[in-house]
Amino acid sequence: MHARDRRRPTIRDVAVEAGVSRATVSRVLNGASRVSPSALSAVNRAIERTGYSANLHARALSAGRSHSVAFLLTEPQDRLFEDPNFSTLLRELSRALAQQPVPPVLVLVVASTQPDRRTMLDYLSQQVDGVFAVSTHRGDPLVGELLRAEVPMVACGRVLGQSLPAPSVAADDLEGARVATQHLLDSDRSRIAMISGPMDTSGGTDRLGGYRSVLGDRFDPRLVAAGDYSYASGAGAMRALLEEEPGIDAVFAASDLMASGALAVLRASGRAVPEDVAIVGFDDSSYASASDPPLTTIRQPWDRIAEEMVRLLLALIEGREPVSVTVPTRLVVRESG
Amino acid sequence: MHARDRRRPTIRDVAVEAGVSRATVSRVLNGASRVSPSALSAVNRAIERTGYSANLHARALSAGRSHSVAFLLTEPQDRLFEDPNFSTLLRELSRALAQQPVPPVLVLVVASTQPDRRTMLDYLSQQVDGVFAVSTHRGDPLVGELLRAEVPMVACGRVLGQSLPAPSVAADDLEGARVATQHLLDSDRSRIAMISGPMDTSGGTDRLGGYRSVLGDRFDPRLVAAGDYSYASGAGAMRALLEEEPGIDAVFAASDLMASGALAVLRASGRAVPEDVAIVGFDDSSYASASDPPLTTIRQPWDRIAEEMVRLLLALIEGREPVSVTVPTRLVVRESG
Repeated sequence: MHARDRRRPTIRDVAVEAGVSRATVSRVLNGASRVSPSALSAVNRAIERTGYSANLHARALSAGRSHSVAFLLTEPQDRLFEDPNFSTLLRELSRALAQQPVPPVLVLVVASTQPDRRTMLDYLSQQVDGVFAVSTHRGDPLVGELLRAEVPMVACGRVLGQSLPAPSVAADDLEGARVATQHLLDSDRSRIAMISGPMDTSGGTDRLGGYRSVLGDRFDPRLVAAGDYSYASGAGAMRALLEEEPGIDAVFAASDLMASGALAVLRASGRAVPEDVAIVGFDDSSYASASDPPLTTIRQPWDRIAEEMVRLLLALIEGREPVSVTVPTRLVVRESG
Repeated sequence: MHARDRRRPTIRDVAVEAGVSRATVSRVLNGASRVSPSALSAVNRAIERTGYSANLHARALSAGRSHSVAFLLTEPQDRLFEDPNFSTLLRELSRALAQQPVPPVLVLVVASTQPDRRTMLDYLSQQVDGVFAVSTHRGDPLVGELLRAEVPMVACGRVLGQSLPAPSVAADDLEGARVATQHLLDSDRSRIAMISGPMDTSGGTDRLGGYRSVLGDRFDPRLVAAGDYSYASGAGAMRALLEEEPGIDAVFAASDLMASGALAVLRASGRAVPEDVAIVGFDDSSYASASDPPLTTIRQPWDRIAEEMVRLLLALIEGREPVSVTVPTRLVVRESG
């Protein structure tokens, strides 16, 4: 073995060596019964030859699970407490887990506040059965390391910029953004601006893509400003857009929180919503209905997203092949646009 | 052995059987060297006789730790996201843990959202090295079970209604409330109401106790209304107090969040703050400085509280005897009173 090959052997190495699928290796490691005797002995020989027994995660799996799964937030801690999507997803994941015969414990790990990165990686790969990765950004090195370590993981939102496939559950951001933009066009708005999410998230790129595809030739890059989904960034983007084009008569914001920030700026500028400027948000979070006027928005079905995330993660833990799921969104018409 | 004695043996049982202290037993289990040969053999014999080896937590400790500790919230999930004290404590605990040579992973467990109580108890007693118990209420059965299972645990705030001693780190609530009330008396207020915390928490009883002790004979139970530290409960309590006694000229609220709710009600009733009614809060959270007018309040030193909680928990994990710590508070004078 060459020096550069001295990385820890993975399930994939064992599968290649044994000439079976990765799922078969996982079933053997998990002590499952649906494995033919010849596959079983091939896998066991391959485990020995590759030295795979050193993989602590697999040992933990074969020795019995920890019965815990992690909600891993890869955003700064402040976002957890500001954005109601996170508390909603946390609650809905708990509800979905409660449907299991022996529901695992759900623990929340805020990556940014972990004092030691190595310990956190060891923890996530050895001490939990799987990880829900929430709000990942393009090429997140933590997500990459978890994928390489073959930690069962399901992301919320499509994962960008990873060399290994990352299973995810995402709302249909592209279609939701199309419906939002079409709704504004249908109410005779002609200067429709967009406050997008960060361009290193799929929610950022896909919602912008939906908006752009509906506008076609009428798309004007000067009418797009990016935020980070926060209230403050929505306000800042709205100020910049009004400076660029005071004649804006509609705004599609990629989150309700940004829509709320934009609404405050529009009001401070003397514009009436929806009379002068219509606003459509995204999420249907608590901010949408609490807003004055209440926000027209695109509903993300968090209950269904959570249910699918739990289903996928448990399947991965059992050694099934990773798949990704897209769930539909729908327009909720209120008073803002 | 009688049937009713068939509970799982604890470190205490081993200590009694061996005729040594609990700390000595812990040192043996942790493989520490500061144990005399005679104590070592006494403990090992006692472990055998009591059947203590069945204790998974001790086995985990002696086999090597999980390098994770839990932030256990015993409040409903909504409180986590509403009350800024929780996010502050979470951040400060991370900072304090980062000072350790090998900082453990800090995971957040919201008790109310765990789908299975038994699995959560197993998790807390077997899969983490220790627990920070946050915002416990009198006689909380979960805290009781963790104490009986001898899970290393440090509470934030004194623990009420448990038969076993529970180590804690608490702000000096009694003295803080005394200073707040005296401050209002010193500014010539004569009808000083109090919005207290819940009476099944030490913050609730001790802050009321401090207020009461300063007022002495002038204490009037009709001027006290209890909230649950939330904004809404502060508003509700203020409405009830004004109905009881419209001539109130000062309010001491046991949290800044309740003080903010009270302030909104006072303003809606046409009263000016601090001209007509002075308000003093408690915590010095983000609500205190963001309030209009900014709140005079009692500062809880979260950095110091977190530092002491980490120090105590690590000492407990190492088998030291439990102690409790009280940290001083101080008055921060702003504009509300």
